[in-house]
Amino acid sequence: MRLFPALFLIASVAAYAADSQQPAPLRGYTAEHSAAESAWEQKFRAMPDAARLRENMQRLTARPHHVGSPYDKNNAEWLLAQLKSYGLNAKIEQFEALFPTPKLRKLELLGADKFTAKLDEPVLDLDPTSNQKDEQLPTYNAYSRDGDVTGSLVYVNYGAPADYERLEAMGISVKGAIVIARYGQTWRGIKPKLAAEHGAIGCIIYSDPKDDGYGQGDSYPDGPMRPADGVQRGSVMDMPVYPGDPQTPGIGAVAGAKTIPLDQVETITKIPVLPISYADAKPFLLALGGQPAPNNWRGGLPITYRTGPSKAQAHLAVAFNWDRKPLYDVVATIPGSTLPDEWVIRGNHHDAWVNGAGDPVSGASPELEEARALGELLKQGWKPQRTIIYGFWDGEEPALLGSTEWVETHAQELSQHAVAYFNSDGNSRGLFGVAGSHSLENFINSVTKDVEDPETKMSVWKRARLAGDLGRDSDARAEDRNRADSRIGALGSGSDYSGFVHHLGIPSVNMGFGGEDEDGGQYHSIYDDFYWYTHFVDTDFAYGKALAQTAGTMVMRMADADTIPYQFTDQADTVRNYVNEVKKLSDTMRKQIKDRNSNIAEGAYAAASDPKKPTVAPKVDAVPPYFNFAPLDQAADDLTAASSEYDKALGSHPAAGAKADAVLMGAERAFLDPRGLPNRPWYAHMLYAPGLYTGYGVKTLPAVREAIEQKQWPVVDEQIARTAAAIEREVEVLRKATSAISAE
Amino acid sequence: MRLFPALFLIASVAAYAADSQQPAPLRGYTAEHSAAESAWEQKFRAMPDAARLRENMQRLTARPHHVGSPYDKNNAEWLLAQLKSYGLNAKIEQFEALFPTPKLRKLELLGADKFTAKLDEPVLDLDPTSNQKDEQLPTYNAYSRDGDVTGSLVYVNYGAPADYERLEAMGISVKGAIVIARYGQTWRGIKPKLAAEHGAIGCIIYSDPKDDGYGQGDSYPDGPMRPADGVQRGSVMDMPVYPGDPQTPGIGAVAGAKTIPLDQVETITKIPVLPISYADAKPFLLALGGQPAPNNWRGGLPITYRTGPSKAQAHLAVAFNWDRKPLYDVVATIPGSTLPDEWVIRGNHHDAWVNGAGDPVSGASPELEEARALGELLKQGWKPQRTIIYGFWDGEEPALLGSTEWVETHAQELSQHAVAYFNSDGNSRGLFGVAGSHSLENFINSVTKDVEDPETKMSVWKRARLAGDLGRDSDARAEDRNRADSRIGALGSGSDYSGFVHHLGIPSVNMGFGGEDEDGGQYHSIYDDFYWYTHFVDTDFAYGKALAQTAGTMVMRMADADTIPYQFTDQADTVRNYVNEVKKLSDTMRKQIKDRNSNIAEGAYAAASDPKKPTVAPKVDAVPPYFNFAPLDQAADDLTAASSEYDKALGSHPAAGAKADAVLMGAERAFLDPRGLPNRPWYAHMLYAPGLYTGYGVKTLPAVREAIEQKQWPVVDEQIARTAAAIEREVEVLRKATSAISAE
Repeated sequence: MRLFPALFLIASVAAYAADSQQPAPLRGYTAEHSAAESAWEQKFRAMPDAARLRENMQRLTARPHHVGSPYDKNNAEWLLAQLKSYGLNAKIEQFEALFPTPKLRKLELLGADKFTAKLDEPVLDLDPTSNQKDEQLPTYNAYSRDGDVTGSLVYVNYGAPADYERLEAMGISVKGAIVIARYGQTWRGIKPKLAAEHGAIGCIIYSDPKDDGYGQGDSYPDGPMRPADGVQRGSVMDMPVYPGDPQTPGIGAVAGAKTIPLDQVETITKIPVLPISYADAKPFLLALGGQPAPNNWRGGLPITYRTGPSKAQAHLAVAFNWDRKPLYDVVATIPGSTLPDEWVIRGNHHDAWVNGAGDPVSGASPELEEARALGELLKQGWKPQRTIIYGFWDGEEPALLGSTEWVETHAQELSQHAVAYFNSDGNSRGLFGVAGSHSLENFINSVTKDVEDPETKMSVWKRARLAGDLGRDSDARAEDRNRADSRIGALGSGSDYSGFVHHLGIPSVNMGFGGEDEDGGQYHSIYDDFYWYTHFVDTDFAYGKALAQTAGTMVMRMADADTIPYQFTDQADTVRNYVNEVKKLSDTMRKQIKDRNSNIAEGAYAAASDPKKPTVAPKVDAVPPYFNFAPLDQAADDLTAASSEYDKALGSHPAAGAKADAVLMGAERAFLDPRGLPNRPWYAHMLYAPGLYTGYGVKTLPAVREAIEQKQWPVVDEQIARTAAAIEREVEVLRKATSAISAE
Repeated sequence: MRLFPALFLIASVAAYAADSQQPAPLRGYTAEHSAAESAWEQKFRAMPDAARLRENMQRLTARPHHVGSPYDKNNAEWLLAQLKSYGLNAKIEQFEALFPTPKLRKLELLGADKFTAKLDEPVLDLDPTSNQKDEQLPTYNAYSRDGDVTGSLVYVNYGAPADYERLEAMGISVKGAIVIARYGQTWRGIKPKLAAEHGAIGCIIYSDPKDDGYGQGDSYPDGPMRPADGVQRGSVMDMPVYPGDPQTPGIGAVAGAKTIPLDQVETITKIPVLPISYADAKPFLLALGGQPAPNNWRGGLPITYRTGPSKAQAHLAVAFNWDRKPLYDVVATIPGSTLPDEWVIRGNHHDAWVNGAGDPVSGASPELEEARALGELLKQGWKPQRTIIYGFWDGEEPALLGSTEWVETHAQELSQHAVAYFNSDGNSRGLFGVAGSHSLENFINSVTKDVEDPETKMSVWKRARLAGDLGRDSDARAEDRNRADSRIGALGSGSDYSGFVHHLGIPSVNMGFGGEDEDGGQYHSIYDDFYWYTHFVDTDFAYGKALAQTAGTMVMRMADADTIPYQFTDQADTVRNYVNEVKKLSDTMRKQIKDRNSNIAEGAYAAASDPKKPTVAPKVDAVPPYFNFAPLDQAADDLTAASSEYDKALGSHPAAGAKADAVLMGAERAFLDPRGLPNRPWYAHMLYAPGLYTGYGVKTLPAVREAIEQKQWPVVDEQIARTAAAIEREVEVLRKATSAISAE
């Protein structure tokens, strides 16, 4: 999972007033149907039960349950039995995928201060599941290549692109070195990727206590934060190229699927990687020579952080069992009564790195409660119009394996039938955070106005919106004062929505509560378990309940509507902002390059260089040409117009129904370009993608934005044209939908 | 001393070009005289000698030489002998002032984890003067009141106004508590002042290793930075009210001067204060309960920083010998040949907290070399037109004692005769940093173009200007691209210029090199000594030489000119910026208060509050009225016009001479208002003052700016009027000077 996602961002006094007035009918519903729907939803929201959430968590986290482990399969079978006991039609869909596990892990500092890293998270007496050594995966980064390397060490801060620029300015190269990077800022897989691109031969990633340890709060078990020997496991596969089974890109890894040979897999790291604790990291950091690291590179250990290189050599050796392991996706279906060929999908993964209470069971357990409650409603006579699918995915942790293989296997059906995908992952306590497709922005706003925040008793929507105000001044708020809907973030990567939205163009949402507990404190450690979660996070499961209420209401409201309640004026407004951003980005980069070139020419770098700590002037860079943004500007304006027309039409014909839906299901799909993004065709969505060099972080209008960021000037105009064409396809869909509705 | 002052800030390509062309005649010089002057100055700049700088330092730092110590007097006598040996007319001027020294210092943590602070900087074998225990002042804060208090501890970060706002939002009060603050951000005297204003009963100040220790580089003696037991001594007198002898405010503390009783002195702290090392601070910080401190409050110790309060009580007891001690100012005079009644003054203090190599001998030793070189020039036939005074001040560390008493004693003569004051203090290695009166901005630019930076061989001016460019983008640079002069900072406080500029209105400059060495690493510690300085700072005295060359050239060029080379268009431009700033400040505060009030009304604070870490909404604040800035706008425009007229006139009559000078000497004095600033009449300059709640940091247009910052709305218009009147007085002086010159 990714840590807590982006929050609702904005506020409007007008909107608060609206919140407390008599509700208008739900979008896509007739007035009558709207009232009936609200009654069903209220019944639903009374059902999720904190005691059951707690029991579910205790059961699912009782033993380590990573991909391929006995308890992973056991959990899948238990989930299946539960879903069936709720009266739902459920099954396990099995796939298989490459999942390397370690057979050798060695890290030593050579020379006079010889030190061998412990690479072990110790048993804690207070924590009853921390002693399940036989079933725990050791600390490692999955999809690191095998390797045995020896070299000096260089500290690269977070190992992000800007960190390498800084090193270059200091005249420090990582060529032939082993880099040591701290966790944070970028997705972990970016660290070895960039290190290798800069010539490093190995990569160590450690958890610095400033970001992830006593710098944030008391260490476990006294408090929630990572202790000295705690380690963050995690995947380092190059998922921004494609996620899922590395040996079956683009196709479902069902039994007998054709696999590509291991040595042709491009998403395995180019250099060996190993994650370590800060107790293990300290001797390596102390061995670094060179200048004190820049101010914002300094972490929380009581040492002088230096860039290196080290005099002493480090020795890193890792080797893995490159096995294919079974995946057990548990899938329950509630057939639609009147629109069975329109599918509303809900998902959360069930596999973990170890016991996984926070990640993923704090999300999976509420999802299970939703399924139970929907089963109850069915018994009481509730009849969803559309088909509802509840998925409990396996193998999310290594590489979104279970969801991706499921999506790839069912690609054709999903493309025809899927209306929306609602994802969650870890859940904590506090404000509602959400990111998603902007055709669902209004829908998300509408649902969250109807769910109560357990702490403040405001609506979840109002609390997030008001709290978001505090950080913003009136100017920043002004542009949104007249905007009824709170903005939502866009989807990067880090959980199971990727196959749905980026590969197949299914409108998707990722959601959760968080921000008030140090819910990342034991992220991917053996200590992310029932004892820890119930002592330090959402201890009374009040927010587990709120998640079930929120996600379940989304599923119901989407499944029951007379017409799919997409809304496109928010989407158009968002696209216009993205277009403005990439235009500004190209101007900013042009200006920065000109400024830097003039600083080089004038000798400013030479003037600033300290002979005792010399810096190196950057190279003169070509000034970017001007680009033809006209197609994007035109498309954004066209989308604004078409979305407004559509909204007017739906307002007059809320029960347009199946004919309109048939067109509307093509709306998000219109953004797909079958050629995909440059050098990563699996990612086909032209609005959203995980950044090639950020991983978690989204890039919007990615083909254009990344071409500019990566200074690929000759292809920018072409990517503008492709992206504009995708938006114009959306415009066409909206025009057709408007006609279809108006014809009803 | 204050740490490294503000840098030159800007750059202009046009100006670089000008730099390398045939020089125009010096301002205030005829063309002929200008060439002769340049020849003398070149001779001068060849004279300062690194070996002598080193010898001077070794001699002056051989033993502790704080106010009242035997070696303080010994140094004064040695300086006197040196100056006389250079052929200069020199004397010691003796004053006396209150200077408390400790007789009791005790700090304990009570309760189960009882701990008694060591309060001692240990002897280091490598460092030959660290063992002079009998002569070292213990670690303490001078002008703390006596006191014996016991209470819980609260951590207040830097103890700045914003930190108390943050505590209030967290619902934490310091009432009845002992605060523990880290050094940094504000001047140290602000910490106990604000703590007392918020109801605290005691104040501990410690050096956090993040800011001042291993977080910055290796610890002494392996590297330059403060070790675990290192302590920063220093004054906590309320100098923003008035500096100098607390018992003789406004008058010279000569023998027999009338003193006010101790219990009527308002600048002694209201609560007891003690500085400690981070080794001593750690047990106290570990005793703090409450929530983890906000992210940017966390320092470099390997602990979870918390706000407190602590369960355990702390006990702080301090008592002092409240003695009056002698001060020995050493003053040398070179009589002016043609304009003996116009005085150019140069100064640096000679007293230290302990051995004081960095602070102040790295500045005093170059000053002595300047005096020697000027003595040589006199022998070679150089004849300065104006009188030159070289002052080596005593008692700067406790409260600018020696310079302030000298200024107060000679106030009348100085008001009649002083043309400029050039100050330095500690010196290090790197870029030239300077702040001063803006009538000298052009002069400073002119001098620094003629001094070579020893590392880059560019001019000192060009290096500072180019290096300043690196941090600024082309927009930020654009406004200054056509401005020939680099901007200089304004004078706050922290060294001996205060009496000259703030009290008497003498155009002043404070200067030094720095930024490349961790020159503050042993600030006010026993380890700021010859061994440390010669191993880690300006080890070859290249920048000591550069300081002598720069300051000495300033003195010569000012003393030799045909007309005082003040320039006022830079001053007018700066004043216009200040006026715009205070206008903007009032708008910003109005907006912030409105925003906050609307957040309170809408419930945003309640929405953001976490019940497990509740926050408190601020109180509704009165929205500020609009103010009448017309007088300031008018005055700024009048000054722009008058300065431009003056510059044109001087251009045509560079040798206007004594008659013009007589008027010009009133220029900076015009900014004085005899009533002084609100509640601190000693500070009479209406353009510059140290901030009442920043200490080191300057407040420009202080009467207006602080009235707004402190929300004293009813007095703002009145302070605008007074400040505008001061500027209009300056306009009058410039008009008279223009007439005087044109009449020549």
